[in-house]
Amino acid sequence: MKPDNSGAFSFQPVGIIRSCFTKKFGIPRQAGLVREVSAVIELLPPCNNEQVIRGLEGFSHIWVLFIFHDSMEEGWKNMVRPPRLGGKKRVGVFASRSPFRPNPIGISAVKLERIETSRGKLSLHIKGADLMNGTPVVDIKPYLPYADAIPDATGGYALEEPEPRFEVLITGNAKSCCEEEEDSGHKGLSSLIVSILNTDPRPAYYSAKHDGASFGLTLWDMDFKWTVEGDKIIVSDVEKLKTKSQDSV
Amino acid sequence: MKPDNSGAFSFQPVGIIRSCFTKKFGIPRQAGLVREVSAVIELLPPCNNEQVIRGLEGFSHIWVLFIFHDSMEEGWKNMVRPPRLGGKKRVGVFASRSPFRPNPIGISAVKLERIETSRGKLSLHIKGADLMNGTPVVDIKPYLPYADAIPDATGGYALEEPEPRFEVLITGNAKSCCEEEEDSGHKGLSSLIVSILNTDPRPAYYSAKHDGASFGLTLWDMDFKWTVEGDKIIVSDVEKLKTKSQDSV
Repeated sequence: MKPDNSGAFSFQPVGIIRSCFTKKFGIPRQAGLVREVSAVIELLPPCNNEQVIRGLEGFSHIWVLFIFHDSMEEGWKNMVRPPRLGGKKRVGVFASRSPFRPNPIGISAVKLERIETSRGKLSLHIKGADLMNGTPVVDIKPYLPYADAIPDATGGYALEEPEPRFEVLITGNAKSCCEEEEDSGHKGLSSLIVSILNTDPRPAYYSAKHDGASFGLTLWDMDFKWTVEGDKIIVSDVEKLKTKSQDSV
Repeated sequence: MKPDNSGAFSFQPVGIIRSCFTKKFGIPRQAGLVREVSAVIELLPPCNNEQVIRGLEGFSHIWVLFIFHDSMEEGWKNMVRPPRLGGKKRVGVFASRSPFRPNPIGISAVKLERIETSRGKLSLHIKGADLMNGTPVVDIKPYLPYADAIPDATGGYALEEPEPRFEVLITGNAKSCCEEEEDSGHKGLSSLIVSILNTDPRPAYYSAKHDGASFGLTLWDMDFKWTVEGDKIIVSDVEKLKTKSQDSV
């Protein structure tokens, strides 16, 4: 590989993400924030080869380098409004983890649960992913605590994990849907919904006001409807989407 | 940005590294291993703009995403021999941090010392870099301890920082060169050499034997000659290279 005449470097995906997040809204804003979220990296040719990941099973965590493919077309600006600052203050794009970047590459440290080989597919099962279904993966690396873990790194506006601020209640149709799905194999669906909504996925400018506004959280082919009322999040309804994504896990 | 017809994604450098490492040999094998190593990220147009890094000065550490530009042409193989395994055992390329990867992107967590604007140049001064002079940078992100620091990550073959195993002695011409350079502004040159050589930059297959073999460590335009004798590394001579890299810092 060489840069082309314009000095650009070109990357081919080595894998693709299969996850419950079939829409962008509701995806946790960093890896590890919602530890329950499972996802799969499906390796693509020529990397769907057991040799390329040999020895990786010994590591508890891995880095996933990926493309913010669903944010690319919007381009980027010098400054962004991070949700952690309530959407009010702007910071430079390089002082943020915004997906709208000059080169839209993301890095996520996730837990490696297991590696599966079946029917010619090589899949890495991961936990704590903040990755949309269909995300192109451009690299996978072992997480090396002696080089990558700097627990006493300081400064900036986003030092601590955001605290859950809500009580999440699943009621009505949403509740019966969760019960049915859990019976038929989607174990832990309710607690997944609770954990995701606890991170408050609303756009930053909604957070302080707009009580009562309605939102949807799409997981697989289910669009869960929810509202915020004071310190409660109420999930009361669900709509099954017609175009079920066959590829999400 | 969109993938091209082959599904590839194209990235333009947003910056370039200026560092003492004008050759690949001797570059620390991970970020943070040699904390004394200073380097500079010089932002390139259109990112040489104070807005893109506004707020970054508040973070103690940053991620640098870069291209292994000096390793690209050699391509990659399914399996590599990591130096940490003495060069004897092979592991999958994705179970390693080898520069010879399907997409040759590296990630390094480094200390952000300061940001400098002068003569139209915007420069991030970093410490602990494992980056070669001239390395293209494709992204810069704040280091977020709550998402990025996983001190209890386990497993694999490379859990702990390698222990220094040598006593490094600088003698003869090398010693007088260091003294001159330190007087004329290259403060800490001797201790930089000691710290780098303590990481044992020899190719893995040399480590257990080949006592007495001679190596060169090139820093800026100085090629320091050194040999290993038992548990001592002796730096005895230095050669000034004719083609001084004007751009290295």
